[in-house]
Amino acid sequence: MRHIIIASTSTTHGSGYLEYLLKDLELFFKNTEEILFIPYARPSGLSHDDYTQIVKIAFSKINKTVKGIHEYENPIDALKKAKGIFVGGGNTFVLTYQLYKNNLITSLQSAVNNGTPYLGTSAGSNICGLTIKTTNDMPIVYPPSFNALALVPFNINPHYLDPDTNSKHMGETREMRIKEFHNFNTQPVIGLREGSWLHVQNDSIILKGTLTARIFEYNQIPYEVEPSTELNILK
Amino acid sequence: MRHIIIASTSTTHGSGYLEYLLKDLELFFKNTEEILFIPYARPSGLSHDDYTQIVKIAFSKINKTVKGIHEYENPIDALKKAKGIFVGGGNTFVLTYQLYKNNLITSLQSAVNNGTPYLGTSAGSNICGLTIKTTNDMPIVYPPSFNALALVPFNINPHYLDPDTNSKHMGETREMRIKEFHNFNTQPVIGLREGSWLHVQNDSIILKGTLTARIFEYNQIPYEVEPSTELNILK
Repeated sequence: MRHIIIASTSTTHGSGYLEYLLKDLELFFKNTEEILFIPYARPSGLSHDDYTQIVKIAFSKINKTVKGIHEYENPIDALKKAKGIFVGGGNTFVLTYQLYKNNLITSLQSAVNNGTPYLGTSAGSNICGLTIKTTNDMPIVYPPSFNALALVPFNINPHYLDPDTNSKHMGETREMRIKEFHNFNTQPVIGLREGSWLHVQNDSIILKGTLTARIFEYNQIPYEVEPSTELNILK
Repeated sequence: MRHIIIASTSTTHGSGYLEYLLKDLELFFKNTEEILFIPYARPSGLSHDDYTQIVKIAFSKINKTVKGIHEYENPIDALKKAKGIFVGGGNTFVLTYQLYKNNLITSLQSAVNNGTPYLGTSAGSNICGLTIKTTNDMPIVYPPSFNALALVPFNINPHYLDPDTNSKHMGETREMRIKEFHNFNTQPVIGLREGSWLHVQNDSIILKGTLTARIFEYNQIPYEVEPSTELNILK
């Protein structure tokens, strides 16, 4: 039985780190007191230690301890033994680079497919898709591949943002970018707004939170889906 | 003598394609009646033909003819013979992928270093820097490298955008992204606002347009520079 939470963001406006999700995480991680944290995405260039400290404080509120994967001598072994995994946000390219460098892609896939609950936020959600080709992040390092964990049969666009109709800026809107993605790729993309998440249980994929999500399918007009929609039909 | 224009955007708000630059381009391309256009960045997935058509119309206003590089059997040969080059905007990853695929990186560098005037806008400006690691674009294809033409000794961030202090969106600001870039890279980055461009003549690099540009140097607080500032001291 697979258990995955793919969240658009760690933090919603005006709220603390992971605060909006904590109640759900208490249930989601009910079978473990310790979470293995992967801090590789390094938001704002935070060190692995400093990032792990933030996560420790958040999870202490639901009585979970947290250990950073960088604290283990053998990260592959740490993943095998983990009873709960959290991959935090930051830069998706930095995260992907480091996962490949430490040879962790297959180990992560195995752990999740063997039933270890996986929580991803932002960059940690991007890597749940087929590729990281719909990240919003700046490509500040060159990873050996854009292929990701493929835990779901589509791509994720976290922090999905509707076009600002008042803007005079000529850069592309998010929707234009995803449309360009579909000139070169065929898989669906789920635009997850901040505060939304996908809850995967085995092959069921349900949209959670109070907001709709925007679905981009190849050669189709984008459309909105309501919370509680079953999304496992997308592929 | 090198002649390069590195423009933030092709189009400013409320104005036609290249319109704000046409007077300068007339002078810049004064020694040629024909421009070789590289349409590889394919904005909105436009075909090479359709994109070239837009550029033809714009340049006809200053009595220049335009031919797309895709119209030539041998693009390397076309670059060698060109008397003026324009690389348009779109997706920087798509552009870079196609330049590598067609083996044009060295030919472009040689042409520019031998004095062929080069105009870049947006993605076509990104590739003038050392790497494409400060592009704003979505990584919709995987290029064989992030290394770019290195026509200037720093990186470009086109369409530079100041933080929106009213936003409730939790995604990173442009400044935060460039700061993260400097956790892994040391070269300066020039944030070029829409309507600004750099004019390179041999080793002189002057900021043009009416707006200031934002300079990000490794381990320094970002700062603004005024139009007409000589930027060749950055490295």
